[in-house]
Amino acid sequence: MASTSAVVPSTHEKLLRARAAAGRMAQLSSAQKNALLLVMADAVEKESERILQANRVDVETSGLSGSMRDRLLLTPERISATANAVREVANLADPVYQTLAEWTRPNGLRIRKVRVPLGVVGVIYESRPNVTVDTVALTIKTGNSIVLRGGKEAAHSNRCLVDILSAVAGLPTGAIELLDSTARDSVQELIKARGLVDVVIPRGGPELISFVAENATVPVIETGAGNCHVFVDESADFDMADAIVMNAKTQRPSVCNAAEKLLVHRSIAAAYVPRIARKLLECGVELRGDTEVCRLGANLDIKPASWQDWGEEYLRLCMAIAVVADVDAAIEHINRHSTMHSDAIVTEDEANAQKFLRYVDSAAVYWNASTRFSDGGEFGFGAEMGISTQKLHCRGPFALAELTSSKYEIVGNGQVRK
Amino acid sequence: MASTSAVVPSTHEKLLRARAAAGRMAQLSSAQKNALLLVMADAVEKESERILQANRVDVETSGLSGSMRDRLLLTPERISATANAVREVANLADPVYQTLAEWTRPNGLRIRKVRVPLGVVGVIYESRPNVTVDTVALTIKTGNSIVLRGGKEAAHSNRCLVDILSAVAGLPTGAIELLDSTARDSVQELIKARGLVDVVIPRGGPELISFVAENATVPVIETGAGNCHVFVDESADFDMADAIVMNAKTQRPSVCNAAEKLLVHRSIAAAYVPRIARKLLECGVELRGDTEVCRLGANLDIKPASWQDWGEEYLRLCMAIAVVADVDAAIEHINRHSTMHSDAIVTEDEANAQKFLRYVDSAAVYWNASTRFSDGGEFGFGAEMGISTQKLHCRGPFALAELTSSKYEIVGNGQVRK
Repeated sequence: MASTSAVVPSTHEKLLRARAAAGRMAQLSSAQKNALLLVMADAVEKESERILQANRVDVETSGLSGSMRDRLLLTPERISATANAVREVANLADPVYQTLAEWTRPNGLRIRKVRVPLGVVGVIYESRPNVTVDTVALTIKTGNSIVLRGGKEAAHSNRCLVDILSAVAGLPTGAIELLDSTARDSVQELIKARGLVDVVIPRGGPELISFVAENATVPVIETGAGNCHVFVDESADFDMADAIVMNAKTQRPSVCNAAEKLLVHRSIAAAYVPRIARKLLECGVELRGDTEVCRLGANLDIKPASWQDWGEEYLRLCMAIAVVADVDAAIEHINRHSTMHSDAIVTEDEANAQKFLRYVDSAAVYWNASTRFSDGGEFGFGAEMGISTQKLHCRGPFALAELTSSKYEIVGNGQVRK
Repeated sequence: MASTSAVVPSTHEKLLRARAAAGRMAQLSSAQKNALLLVMADAVEKESERILQANRVDVETSGLSGSMRDRLLLTPERISATANAVREVANLADPVYQTLAEWTRPNGLRIRKVRVPLGVVGVIYESRPNVTVDTVALTIKTGNSIVLRGGKEAAHSNRCLVDILSAVAGLPTGAIELLDSTARDSVQELIKARGLVDVVIPRGGPELISFVAENATVPVIETGAGNCHVFVDESADFDMADAIVMNAKTQRPSVCNAAEKLLVHRSIAAAYVPRIARKLLECGVELRGDTEVCRLGANLDIKPASWQDWGEEYLRLCMAIAVVADVDAAIEHINRHSTMHSDAIVTEDEANAQKFLRYVDSAAVYWNASTRFSDGGEFGFGAEMGISTQKLHCRGPFALAELTSSKYEIVGNGQVRK
């Protein structure tokens, strides 16, 4: 097992190993990669006692409690679920070497655009140890090597998981590298390793994501931050609006696709604002409102919203409500304040819906559905690497296809340029 | 005309204007965008006298000569060619709002992945003023706004061109912004304008590209640097190899898709190295070689190559030659030293060709054709924004489609997440 080695390799040595492994990973067939994944899934289950033991050390030394502790905690059920997720990835179609386009030029050159692995994928994440296994499965499936940099609170769990995954026979050395989670330096080195790392994906809170985006010199896929909106239009079915608002806000308030803001059309505000405010308050949601909302809900516990509220991702049972003049004002409000993640309109008016779908500049835009569906699994991808909130490379939930690049293969019979 | 305004707006103000314009650009129909492009093409031709005058000031004050002066120089013919290029872009298909995929989930949610504009595209470039018009045409066609930062030697030409292009009726204010080319600050501000700029594309020499890649906090598409190889395999047709090597090296040595390195299979080296070395020398190509090449060409003017030679992009009539054991050694050499731009194999052996096409990790890989075909026009894209040498978002020659992002439009009838 890798961890018993006496000399600890430096971050740079690990990156070099990952780079060297990338060439070998790209040459594995789909059958070889799937076989590796199935053996990994079995190994994780077989070694679950060892994993739980390592996890216990992390949980006890972390001193965390509540939802923070829960994120870090592994259980036999969670380990089985993680192993099954790896088996599901093995069952997905392999995107590598798919032909994306093919054509012949007038001079006879045949051009084929083909999917290829990205190479070395860096993942920087926080406490949840299942991310280690999930991201390894996705990167191996796509013929990449992976450099992991987990949170220090999960150091023992991650080390144990990586040891088990790396020990699988037939996996090229360096295909899975785990960086030292106690050193901030290892993040710095990873995000500045131009020529060694092809992309870095930060998965975690807004501070982590902006730190990576602002300091990386290698390409980044930004994920996560979601200041999501639901707009209840004039013609909305109130029962449907209730169901969508309540689901988007309360079903899992700590995640990025939960709604943080509610916009209500002026002409229905007097009827709808007190109605939904009561329901939200009953579920323990703290409410903030613009002047109009505070007036309409004068007898309810609604605090005045500050300008900052409109841009904030609460990630908890808190929601700010504003009244807007019409669908155009809703679109303008969203495009000004949103993080371009997921936004929804509830309306029976198709023209307004189409306008909203087209002009809200977000990764996922919903008509009469909850923002909570922004997820690789819910989209039918069979897995998820993250939700991109940038416009380059991929946008919205992404999984296997987005862990690939492309190249052009051009076949001639001696053509030269005139 | 914009330039006559008394108060010069700051870089930040220009970026805010471009951001605001992006929303309006995204709403233009294909017909509106094409009409704008055709009026722009006419305006450029109609105002050619004014453009030539501005260009004369740049050429005279620059003090440049030779190929540097030639890059900066505009002529009536070049202006017409530029205007015609804009007309060709107008004739291309509009990728914006194309449906990329569409499916329905078991819960009835209908998901559509649709192309959308990127938003604000920043372009940083050096002396050639036609880049101003070319890039404006491509970004307008794709519903983006553009922020240009040209070289200071072309300041008058670029100002004049942007004034003419911006004056076209119906173009949203801020759709084309030109930053101050005399201030280095304006580059810094552009590449760090997170939230205002969606992508920056540097077009120029290696220093410019690494400066941008290393300092930008907004996403970058790296373009350009090309340390391209031709590998002449054991079974190569020597006449075809001669034609490809000579074309790749000498037809236009100053560009990124020109070959810089020649690899020759050991078993044909004694016959082929002296033959091709003579031809290259006759065309004025300076030659460098590994030990074996220097021995085989002992009676020819071949200098010993240093380790650094193998990674260098000469951009002039210079070529380094190495002897390699076989196709595997050629692939290994290329993957170690290349800039992942364009590399070619000349062979009659299909198995070797397929191996080379698959395992050389470059944007464009050729079998029996010159590397000089790596170009948007030669690929049939009708235009070119650049040649990406990174793996994220796009790779190889890119044009209209790569100036777009995507979004998901999801239509339901009240679905909420369980």
